[in-house]
Amino acid sequence: MGYEQAWLNYHQVKDQSFRKYLTGVYSLEEDAIICSGIRELTLAMEHMYAVTLPCDKGAAESGIHLRKNSEADLGQEGYHIYPEGPVFVIEGCTSQGILYGIFQLLRRLQTEVVAEEINDNKLPDNPLRMLNHWDNMDGSIERGYAGHSFFFKDNEVLVNERTLDYARLAASVGINGVVINNVNVKNAATFLITPRYFADLRKIQEIFASYGIKLFLSLNFAAPLELGGLQSADPASDTVKDWWTDKLKEVFQELPGFGGFLVKADSEGRPGPFTYGRTHAEGANMLADIISPYGGIIIWRCFVYNCRQDWRDLETDRARAGYDHFQPLDGAFRDNVILQIKNGPMDFQVREPVSPLFGGMKATNQILEVQIAQEYTGQQKHVCYLLPMFREILNFRTHCEQDKDTVGDLISGRTYGQKHGGMAAVINTGADENWTGHDLAAANWYGFGRLSFDRNLTAEEIAAEWVLLTFGSDPKAMAVVHGILMNSWNVYESYTSPLGIGWMVNPGYHYGPNVDGYEYDRWGTYHRADHRGLGVDRSSKGTGYATQYHEPNASLYETIDTCPEELLLFFHYVEYAHCLSSGKTLIQHIYDTHFEGADVVEATVKGWKGLEGILEPIAYERVLARLENQELHAKEWRDVVCSYFYRKSGIADERNRQIF
Amino acid sequence: MGYEQAWLNYHQVKDQSFRKYLTGVYSLEEDAIICSGIRELTLAMEHMYAVTLPCDKGAAESGIHLRKNSEADLGQEGYHIYPEGPVFVIEGCTSQGILYGIFQLLRRLQTEVVAEEINDNKLPDNPLRMLNHWDNMDGSIERGYAGHSFFFKDNEVLVNERTLDYARLAASVGINGVVINNVNVKNAATFLITPRYFADLRKIQEIFASYGIKLFLSLNFAAPLELGGLQSADPASDTVKDWWTDKLKEVFQELPGFGGFLVKADSEGRPGPFTYGRTHAEGANMLADIISPYGGIIIWRCFVYNCRQDWRDLETDRARAGYDHFQPLDGAFRDNVILQIKNGPMDFQVREPVSPLFGGMKATNQILEVQIAQEYTGQQKHVCYLLPMFREILNFRTHCEQDKDTVGDLISGRTYGQKHGGMAAVINTGADENWTGHDLAAANWYGFGRLSFDRNLTAEEIAAEWVLLTFGSDPKAMAVVHGILMNSWNVYESYTSPLGIGWMVNPGYHYGPNVDGYEYDRWGTYHRADHRGLGVDRSSKGTGYATQYHEPNASLYETIDTCPEELLLFFHYVEYAHCLSSGKTLIQHIYDTHFEGADVVEATVKGWKGLEGILEPIAYERVLARLENQELHAKEWRDVVCSYFYRKSGIADERNRQIF
Repeated sequence: MGYEQAWLNYHQVKDQSFRKYLTGVYSLEEDAIICSGIRELTLAMEHMYAVTLPCDKGAAESGIHLRKNSEADLGQEGYHIYPEGPVFVIEGCTSQGILYGIFQLLRRLQTEVVAEEINDNKLPDNPLRMLNHWDNMDGSIERGYAGHSFFFKDNEVLVNERTLDYARLAASVGINGVVINNVNVKNAATFLITPRYFADLRKIQEIFASYGIKLFLSLNFAAPLELGGLQSADPASDTVKDWWTDKLKEVFQELPGFGGFLVKADSEGRPGPFTYGRTHAEGANMLADIISPYGGIIIWRCFVYNCRQDWRDLETDRARAGYDHFQPLDGAFRDNVILQIKNGPMDFQVREPVSPLFGGMKATNQILEVQIAQEYTGQQKHVCYLLPMFREILNFRTHCEQDKDTVGDLISGRTYGQKHGGMAAVINTGADENWTGHDLAAANWYGFGRLSFDRNLTAEEIAAEWVLLTFGSDPKAMAVVHGILMNSWNVYESYTSPLGIGWMVNPGYHYGPNVDGYEYDRWGTYHRADHRGLGVDRSSKGTGYATQYHEPNASLYETIDTCPEELLLFFHYVEYAHCLSSGKTLIQHIYDTHFEGADVVEATVKGWKGLEGILEPIAYERVLARLENQELHAKEWRDVVCSYFYRKSGIADERNRQIF
Repeated sequence: MGYEQAWLNYHQVKDQSFRKYLTGVYSLEEDAIICSGIRELTLAMEHMYAVTLPCDKGAAESGIHLRKNSEADLGQEGYHIYPEGPVFVIEGCTSQGILYGIFQLLRRLQTEVVAEEINDNKLPDNPLRMLNHWDNMDGSIERGYAGHSFFFKDNEVLVNERTLDYARLAASVGINGVVINNVNVKNAATFLITPRYFADLRKIQEIFASYGIKLFLSLNFAAPLELGGLQSADPASDTVKDWWTDKLKEVFQELPGFGGFLVKADSEGRPGPFTYGRTHAEGANMLADIISPYGGIIIWRCFVYNCRQDWRDLETDRARAGYDHFQPLDGAFRDNVILQIKNGPMDFQVREPVSPLFGGMKATNQILEVQIAQEYTGQQKHVCYLLPMFREILNFRTHCEQDKDTVGDLISGRTYGQKHGGMAAVINTGADENWTGHDLAAANWYGFGRLSFDRNLTAEEIAAEWVLLTFGSDPKAMAVVHGILMNSWNVYESYTSPLGIGWMVNPGYHYGPNVDGYEYDRWGTYHRADHRGLGVDRSSKGTGYATQYHEPNASLYETIDTCPEELLLFFHYVEYAHCLSSGKTLIQHIYDTHFEGADVVEATVKGWKGLEGILEPIAYERVLARLENQELHAKEWRDVVCSYFYRKSGIADERNRQIF
């Protein structure tokens, strides 16, 4: 444990009811995953009870029993943990299920649950629970705010102590697939699928596999050109198919158990099937057919839009692009292709409607893609606990069917019975001691894993778990940190962009307020603010985006009166004088939320200072510095946004606060 | 002549009256500069008359005579050229004067002047006529839009054919000093004054010297730390002084005839005397004392301001900074220190008032710094012939005295008798075939040199010369190109930022419209536009910047009614409904100028197309492509600026043109 251990930082527990099982850990089998589990148990018990847990393969009359039971109704990854007389049973059909059971047990014990009361039986809700890293091979991380990559450096693959700790952390919350390289595959990353890198990738893969995690890679669709020296990357070309056939056979042979590929094609300058007049289905299926014999899957990102839009073009709507491109292809993809769909139609804004592709496709495997890299949500300089947002998304009713129609239902396969599906999070863990730059950002990593495994966990429950595991059980720390987390998304939203309009950030690096930053640009991201009001009309009278939803959602979004208020400006151009449900005008709402948001951050800093001496000094100081910086920047956001709209509207703040 | 030769592209002439002097070129002396002159004459006559000019050292009865005459009233750099019977005399007190005479003769002949009518007698108006390159040692050029550096590559100094051609071009228009490295001295450039680079610098210096050009370098004020390993760069420290004394002695010994240093200190992150609580005079004088025995000079840039301003701070005014910092130091600098003052108080905007430091200092050597690198004036993607601006600046009456009070008078030493002074231009010639990216941008390089030598030349005269030298004497080409050049500054201004307000560009790279780009930033560059109007109150009731001028300028700038209209928004916040001298409201003026400007560019493209078949195809096509791009971008500027102000003001265009 050379590095910090985030939520696996096992600490002494008060409740001693489990102590009686510490006579030993017994398992009839001993594969790599079971070994990982036993190692974790041993480590944890050492820290929690100061006991060195004896380990024995055979059965015994007491202790912790790892029981592989193919008769149990626990699927490939479920577990059941329960006391059985003098024995504590951790049961699964597979080693992986048992590993998850072990982590669940440790979570329970760390949160001071009495041993006799533990009886947890859980199969994961989603088949795939993935992390997508945007690490480049030079060691940089796209949208990375937590130090350099620990997967790559100077165009080499890194394998070290941190690789193992990373796998432990990921597996502890149920992650079972990881893409280690950036979806924008360029330069050296194109060569990851060549002999130069196989040995090192195999080492990573072995570590991952011993924690039940499959290794995936992002793929360069133009590899036949850039790697193969072919004249084309046309998916319909036999030469191209032959090249891929040989290449991918080599990959799966060199990397046994390899998961497959994530592909960003025809997006933001990346090559793709469009270049050759082919559909995305043709592109994805070509690869999928080739790797199907090896059990591999192709995860195809739906982030396709025209990034050369003219801001003067009022017809084109980037929000429509995902649905327009992919919905007509429903049913055209192979069984081992999964479309990976961002939660919203734009790009990880603090507030977006749920993508209408969810519910728009019935015969296509789907993964929900969210981003815990906080690209647009404060970049780990601001606290922004995203689980409340993720919960909202999962619970969003698409009305594609009478019931089982939520996003959570769709991606888990419950609605239409797809075999593949699940959740993926874009993550930017890096070489920073605390893994995530901002200590509190680790709650998003933790929470994403937990929620993807068990979609019924609430954001509150997850936050409570994480705080206890990370900072221990001091009640004041618990209350303060939990409060900060639970507020943080709404607070961040309140002092940044109002009512779903999004953007208003500095172009390129996406940090800090710039109301017109993307207004006269080519990215399809406009607020259309003028002296009367702001917002984009996406109703049927506008761009028609609202009509991509099933009823009654389409009708709800259609009019200002029925549109959910938090999305009002996403769907409608609204005058500053428009009266909101609060009784406030839109402009006054903008002023008030921005001032209130910045005030909350100010109070948050004060609250945090009350934890001095309670929390470990290093983490305390680290978070304090970030919170103080957040306060400065929240006020900057407040002042820029309020000044912008005051200068534009000419309408004074009713409360006469200072606006510049 | 492996490269293109810009205005030294000698072509056949029609007038043959000079042919009778082509019997030979005679000179009693033969130093490096005379040799350069004879080489140029020979080359030119070959192209112009298809004659190989015989060269002989001694006297003869006819031909071209290079006559060094120490009795002539021609100073160190003047020339007199005239026919004398069968002889054509090129006379000077020095070889350098003779060289300038040769280039003047060639210019005359290229522009079809009859030999017998030539009688030009000219001493340069400014002692120093300098080019400042912002070339980095990795080969990049800060604000470079014409290819890579031809002075540096991969941290090495380049010396090649282009070095020589560069010196010829520079000397041909009277340049006598060149700073080859970026004023932001970092990394390898700090090491330019170490043995590693002396041999190569000496080669450049020898080439330059053979054209009468002194080599200068930009200096890193922090060199004692970064190079010397000292703990301080405090100019008052004896250790620091000793270090500089040894270092600079070495430099002047290794580079005989070296000119001295340009220093950007305490500016935009560069270190300087402020770090140690010293004044700029103390910093500059320390260096000046050390290099005085070698005849070296220190050129100290006055571009000092707070680049960490809070946009919410309405008191601080960046425009004031130069005067506030340097005026109190008037008289405190050594005789071999020259302050280099940007033409305006901000940063090379398309329109600024003249810096009040001109006329504000009576006992300080001064250089006027202008920028032909078009950083804010279209970056050589747009035509912007800057000589009309430079003329306005030189002719600006500061009223520091009853007469001889113009900027031109001040920098030439005519007002207060300073020995050092002159003009410097920031330039970005690069490895592009045509030297300047945009062919028409070469007119700025040419024109700057010509004007710095002879401040009475008009922008029209200079443009006419340049067109003839560059494109030949076709009357249609002459008319079209001359017309484009002479209009271009006003046209660029008309579709970009109105009435002196400046900025409104994308931060960082400074290209393209972004009205709020610098509005909520830390750079001290604000337009303060709101729903009622825009502009910055810099009168005595505002930031007080206007009071830095002598009367009557101060009073003129003080009120909206008397302020020159082209600077109205620089000095005043003005309501959109305000009526301008044209009878138009401010907002209508903004609309009209932007539409008109874009229309002119459209017409310019058409006009240029009329030159197909007349101009050399390569240059014709190259310029056409740039003009077509300019048209697109001018319309982008028009639409962004008009939309911004329409959306903000809510006032419709009287002419109902399309605004978004």
